[in-house]
Order: sequence, then C-alpha cells, then structure tokens
Amino acid sequence: MDRTQDTLYLRIADQLAGSIRAGTLARGERIASVRELARQQGVSMATVVQAYRTLEDARLIEARPRSGYFVAARSTRRPPEPETTPLPPQSQAVSVSSMGSRVFAMAVDPGFISFGAATPGDELFPYERVRRAIGRAAQRNRATLSRYPLGAGTPELRRAIARQALSMGCQLDLRDILVTNSCLESVSLCLRAVTKPGDVVALESPTYFGFLEILESMHLRALEIPTHPRQGLSVDALSLALDTQPVKAVLAVPTLSNPLGSSMPLVERRRLAQLVAQRGVPLIEDVIYNALCEHDEQRRAVRSYDDTGHVMICGSFSKTVAPGLRMGYVDAGRWSEQVKRLKAVHSGAHTEFLELAVADLLTQPGAESAYRQLRNTVAARVDEARGIIAESFPKGTRVTDPPGGFILWVELPAGSDSMALFDACLTERICIAPGTMFSTTGRYRHCVRLGLGGRWDEAQRRALRRVGELAQAVAPMA
Amino acid sequence: MDRTQDTLYLRIADQLAGSIRAGTLARGERIASVRELARQQGVSMATVVQAYRTLEDARLIEARPRSGYFVAARSTRRPPEPETTPLPPQSQAVSVSSMGSRVFAMAVDPGFISFGAATPGDELFPYERVRRAIGRAAQRNRATLSRYPLGAGTPELRRAIARQALSMGCQLDLRDILVTNSCLESVSLCLRAVTKPGDVVALESPTYFGFLEILESMHLRALEIPTHPRQGLSVDALSLALDTQPVKAVLAVPTLSNPLGSSMPLVERRRLAQLVAQRGVPLIEDVIYNALCEHDEQRRAVRSYDDTGHVMICGSFSKTVAPGLRMGYVDAGRWSEQVKRLKAVHSGAHTEFLELAVADLLTQPGAESAYRQLRNTVAARVDEARGIIAESFPKGTRVTDPPGGFILWVELPAGSDSMALFDACLTERICIAPGTMFSTTGRYRHCVRLGLGGRWDEAQRRALRRVGELAQAVAPMA
Repeated sequence: MDRTQDTLYLRIADQLAGSIRAGTLARGERIASVRELARQQGVSMATVVQAYRTLEDARLIEARPRSGYFVAARSTRRPPEPETTPLPPQSQAVSVSSMGSRVFAMAVDPGFISFGAATPGDELFPYERVRRAIGRAAQRNRATLSRYPLGAGTPELRRAIARQALSMGCQLDLRDILVTNSCLESVSLCLRAVTKPGDVVALESPTYFGFLEILESMHLRALEIPTHPRQGLSVDALSLALDTQPVKAVLAVPTLSNPLGSSMPLVERRRLAQLVAQRGVPLIEDVIYNALCEHDEQRRAVRSYDDTGHVMICGSFSKTVAPGLRMGYVDAGRWSEQVKRLKAVHSGAHTEFLELAVADLLTQPGAESAYRQLRNTVAARVDEARGIIAESFPKGTRVTDPPGGFILWVELPAGSDSMALFDACLTERICIAPGTMFSTTGRYRHCVRLGLGGRWDEAQRRALRRVGELAQAVAPMA
Repeated sequence: MDRTQDTLYLRIADQLAGSIRAGTLARGERIASVRELARQQGVSMATVVQAYRTLEDARLIEARPRSGYFVAARSTRRPPEPETTPLPPQSQAVSVSSMGSRVFAMAVDPGFISFGAATPGDELFPYERVRRAIGRAAQRNRATLSRYPLGAGTPELRRAIARQALSMGCQLDLRDILVTNSCLESVSLCLRAVTKPGDVVALESPTYFGFLEILESMHLRALEIPTHPRQGLSVDALSLALDTQPVKAVLAVPTLSNPLGSSMPLVERRRLAQLVAQRGVPLIEDVIYNALCEHDEQRRAVRSYDDTGHVMICGSFSKTVAPGLRMGYVDAGRWSEQVKRLKAVHSGAHTEFLELAVADLLTQPGAESAYRQLRNTVAARVDEARGIIAESFPKGTRVTDPPGGFILWVELPAGSDSMALFDACLTERICIAPGTMFSTTGRYRHCVRLGLGGRWDEAQRRALRRVGELAQAVAPMA
C-alpha cells in the first residue's frame, strides 16, 4: 500500500471516530455501507473496508452479519465521576511504601493480570516499524557505534523533539534540549537543579507515585494541591499555597495527569504559567501523555504560555512511540545549563544510533497517524472498562472519564478499603494499584488506579468484573 | 575465515607480542620467517602471514624488504618516570574549573588534534561486529522493542557481566548486578548511596577529573591520597587518613588509574580490601580499564579479596567493547538494594535489546581475542609516544610507563606552566589536558595528561612533537 492510501483510510477512520465521540453518530446507529461511503467520499471500497476494520479494532463500530455496520453500543450505565478531594494545607515529609515495587513486579509477571502499572503494552506498538528504524539507524550511522558520544544528544533527535514540541505550541531552542534516559530522569534532574533537601515541592493530588518516590529519595517535602478530576490542578489553591508556604518548585502533569487523567483548560494553563513566572518559582511540566489526549487543543503545553524560562518541560517517547526504547528529554528553560551539567557529570550521553532511530520514528510520515490509531484503540478499551465498572462495581462507585490515555481512577464507596481489595485481588492473581500510593496525606484509601495499557481481551474483561465483585466485599455495609 | 583459524593467528600473534614485551625477543632482532614459523607451529603460512600483519599493525614488528621480519626498534631514549607527589593531609572542598568541558568539546571537534580526552577512538573498535550484534538482538528480541523494561537489567547481560567478572577474580551475584548508563553513573549512584553533602571522600591523587566533578556537584569534600605512578594508591597513607579524617567512602581505580596508569600490586589490593572492611568504609572500585591491563594477574579486582560486601564494583564497556553503546554496571555489595532503588527511582531501566546486543558481544568467541588485539594496538602507540616524548620534550621531563591503556601522565620540569602550554597548543589546534584538572590541591601545574585513544598517524606524531617544542618554551630557564 502506498503512502497516500495509508493516509486516506486513516483520515476516514479518524473522521468517523470523531463523529462517534462527539455523538453526531449515536451509539447503536447504523452507518453507511462500504459501497455508500466509497461513493460519498470518492475513494475505493478497499480504502473504506480498511477504515472500517480500524474502527472495528478500536471497538468503535461493529459489523452485524447481513445488516451492515453499526456504531458500537456504549455501556448504557455511565458511572458518575469523582470530585476534588479536600486536603490539609501543610507540606508532608514523604515516606513511600514498598507498594510501588510490588505492583511493578506483578506488572511484568505473566502469571498476573495486571491493572497495576501505567505502562502501555506491546500490543499497542507495532514493533516491526521500530525494528526497521533501528536497522536503518545502525546501518547509516555505523561510525557512531564505536564513537564515544559527548554532549546533550544528537542534533537530529533534538531537532525532532523541537518539531514535536511545536504541536504543543512550544518553540524550543535546540541548544536547551537535553536527551535523557526517561521522563523520570528529566524530572529528577530538574528537581536536583532547583531544590535542596528539606525544600517543599507542590504537586497534584493524587499524584504519580514515582514523583513521591523521587521526593522521598531527595528528602523533599510534598505539598499536595487540590486537583479536579477533569480540570486538573487548582491554580487558585496553588496561588494560595505559594502565599503561605516556602514552595521551591511545582511539579505537574497538566495533560492527562496520572492517576486522575485530568487535563487543565487552556485558560488555567495560561494562569499557571503567569503565576509561576510572577512568583519566580520553577514549574516542572511533565508532557509524557500530551500526544495521547483526544482534544488537539489540550495537547498544548503550559510552557507555550511562558516566555520567562520558568517552565521546565519534560517528556519521553515511552508512552507514545516505543516503550522499549528508553529515551526522554528535557528543556529546563532558565535552568538548562545546570540540568545539562548535572546529566553530563552524573551519567553522560546516550547511545547515538538509538537517538537517530527515535528521530527517524518521530519524523516518519506515518508518525501522526500512529498516534491517532493509538488514541482510538485506548479510547475504545477505556470506554469499555468504564462500562464494566458501572455494571460490576459497588453502588456509589465513581470513576474518571479522561480525554485520552489508559488510566482510570476509581473511587469506591466511602469507607471501602483498597488495601483489603488489593490483597483479595492478589489471591486471584490480579494486580491493582491501591489509592494510598498516590498521596502522602493518607487520603484515597477508598480509591484504586486501574492501568489499561496492557493486553485487553476476554481474560482482562473477566478479571475487571472480578475486581468489582471483590470490591463489593470490601465496601462498608449500606 | 572460520573461527578456529581466527583464534589461531591471534594466539600466535599474542605469543610473539608477549615474547617481545618480556624482552625474550630483543628490539631490532630478526624473527622467524613465515615459512619457518609455519613449520615450527604446524600451521599454514597464511595463518602466520596474518599473525605478522597483526603485529605489524600494532607496530611490534616491521618487515624489511628482502631481509625478513624484525622486532620493531623501540625508542632508544627511555624517559624517566614520575614519583609519588606529597600532599596536604586535609580534605578540600571541590571547585572544578570549566576546563573539563572545554577539553571535551575539543576532543569531538574534528578541527583539533586531541590528546585531551581519555576516550578511545573509533579506529580501535570494528563497528561491523557491533552492528551485526545490534541487528541480531533487534531481530531475535523484537517484542522487547515495544515492551516497557522494568528492573535492574536483562538476565542475559547480568549473566555476561558476572562471567566477565570471573576474569577479575570476582564471583558476583546476578541479583546484585545493576545495569547503568555508564561507569560514571555507577560511581555517582554509589556515592549517593553512602554519602551526604559535606562528607569526605578519599581518592587517588592525581585523580580522574570526572570524579572531582561528581564530588563538587554533590558538595562532597575530596581527600587526596598519595599515589605512586606504578604502585598506585598508598594503602599506608589511606590507613593513616582513615585514622585522622572522617572519611565516608574511598573511590579508587586500582588497575590503570586515570591519569597515572598505575596498577596496584596484588598484595596491596588485598590490604586495601581488608582495610575498608575493618574500618567499615565503602570502597567504590572502578574497573573500567581492567581488561586493558597487559598483566593478567593485575586484572584482578580488589573486590575479589572482599567477602564483607564493602567493595562496590563499577564498570562499563565504553573503553573495551564499543564506546558508542552506552552501558555500565555496578554491584554495590551490601549497598546493592539502595543503589538499585536510586536507579529505579531517578532514571529507570535501559533499552533491553541493546543490553542483549552487549551480552552477545561479551560472550562471542572472538571477545577475548578482540581485547588482546586492542591491548597490542594501544601498547604499540603508547610506546611510540613515549619515545617521541623522550626525544622532543624538555630535558628533565618524566613520563609514566603504564602496563596498558592509552593514557600518559607527563611531568614537565618543575616550574613549567601547563596552562600556558595548553594555551600555546590551542593556537595550533592541538588539545591537551593540563595537570591542575586532576586535583583539588593545586598540585600538578607542571603536569599534562595525554590521551592516545584517538586516531594515531603521522599528523598525531607530528602534533605530539610540536607539544614537546611548545613545552620547551614554558619550561623555566635552566
């Protein structure tokens, strides 16, 4: 299939997916036949067949024998969403349990069905495309294989990163971009550049437990800021916190925050950029999920509103291009030199040919449609999982409805004990992440994070229903 | 050529190289003709031709037209070696100049002839072997390309590392081995596990300036221990230092230390292991150069004498297998769990298929002979460089005679100013590393480190002679 053909069927699939999500095409409604649509769009029937197959794979439409294609019926029971959790106004010393390592160990154990990790599964990424890029890079850049790399990353990859940042509204200077081992390393470097032990860092609540692990390791204090499951970090609450607490850095995931999946409205992003610039406090912005957001405009980074250098942008390609190629980046704004020096002194440069392979993957013509397909696939399974939760989990359960990504945050009825649920699930070789992992405040004991990035088939659906049944047992008596 | 043949000619070359280095075959002496040696050894003449070519490449023998093969004449002027430098007994706060970055920038600038960096050049590593290993690894382990890696490294690579450690006399436990981005990262992780800001770290003097950069970045104090250019770190002096100073860690390169190239006698290694165990002080042992040491027995690590877990062993493959594949390792003994956790929290795992490629390179049948060839090649050029120094540098210059590696430490006549020499060399687009970079004590202003790992041909020889001429100008009047 040539490239034009390739783009064409995906464009058609994408249009239809958009209409389905927007409700223009209702759930259960019959859609145009292959012949009709081919005529309407002036394309070949083969192209339409391929577009429909893509939508079927994404479970957005379904073929009914001898009747044609229909918009897949979405679960009729739509579970309610959680609300912002009130929080204590003081910062907390961080002491993370070993829960993270336990949950991760089970995530890679094939004996477990894991909803524990927020890592995407290999089904989501066609490895052949990656393998070809690697082969090409090793062939074309043979000399780099025996050359000691120095510096912040190959110009090719830094250029590709800068180009991708344009889709987030950011104009990055190549000289400020540093290639790292992961988004985690980027965040860690930023924190090391702007804090010292005992300092206070403000962050979303609930927050990614990996951030809490970094804070604990660096003896930093966490100040959790109320965060709305849809609107994200409360800029008002943060502003108040900056008035009253010695906050040395803000760490946030404005697009598809982990675990809430919240995405800040653009007006709040602008306010956040202005706030940190006014107060002279660095914002470490994690954009690892931006390309997974279904709404184009919400892929825009807070950094795009900042012309003062106070926003340090951190990303990687582990969730969107190839989880197996470990590569992240950071542009630390006015702290770029410090961050680059920390990396050079404590770790050094990365493998050049691998950087060139990633640059190749990022700039290939198919890159944009690969993102689209990924978004569609995960949207369908997240939708389906929400339906299962509505049907199988205890009455009163709330669950987020994120605009992308593969993470759901489930609030069980007040008084439920997610640690008891965790233990009960373990005996059936199912892994979940209990809510207490995502905060230092002791909140969220009745919450659970579900990662749906892994395999998704009948066994997973059954396991998720089973989690719901077990949750009934840990729910308090009505 | 099949594998047996491959091993055979290298074995013959290696035997001859050994006889030449041991002096059994004298410089300038005629050696057996191809026909004679083939008969003596019962091998084909083609095999002998290939062995002789290898020795010619390594400049250990030379063909004279119509006369046969001769042991290459070694420079008749053998320069004297430096001695141990006395040092102040106090620890020093570390404040490193920007010299390191300047020297490194020139090392990668093709407009410069660089003796500045201690990095091996691409000529020393046949990239085709590396490229094939990468292709195989990506092909056989396709699934890893789209799988999120977790944990301390693939079992295959950790097993290959443990096997290689056997050649250093060490029995490592796979569970304690952690794969890192570089030996630098390994050392940094160890220091982070066992020190806090303000602590004192004892290390060789002169020492690798990268270590000083890490210490400065972590606000650690350096206590430099007298180090003999041949015998290495003085265990007596270290013992005294441990009596009188609050040393929290010892950081040493017992084999081919950088920049002196010293290698500790085995009896001193054993004493060092016993000393740190008795005092309960961790020793961070950098074994990055061990495989380059010409003497088998001196490849033995201090760690091999330690059964208390006080020796943290750090290595990488950048100097010995493929400089372009960034990969290091650490087994931190009793601090293994802390080090593994620091890595997981601040950076995460590495690219699995690349780890598998390195494991492949380490366990291939040709791996040992590749080390041998590398040792022979660098030995020949270091020998030649010492000859040039004896001829071209000021009277009274001393230079080390390391048992391997590609680094020379040159002591110019007392009162010479290596910074002035550095500046003079720059104007001729030659880069050297001035001695002050390798200490916090202000010693070594009259010293220069020369890295001979890069290209080595007529231009380099001429440049080295020119450095000698310029050194005459910065030498004090006799």
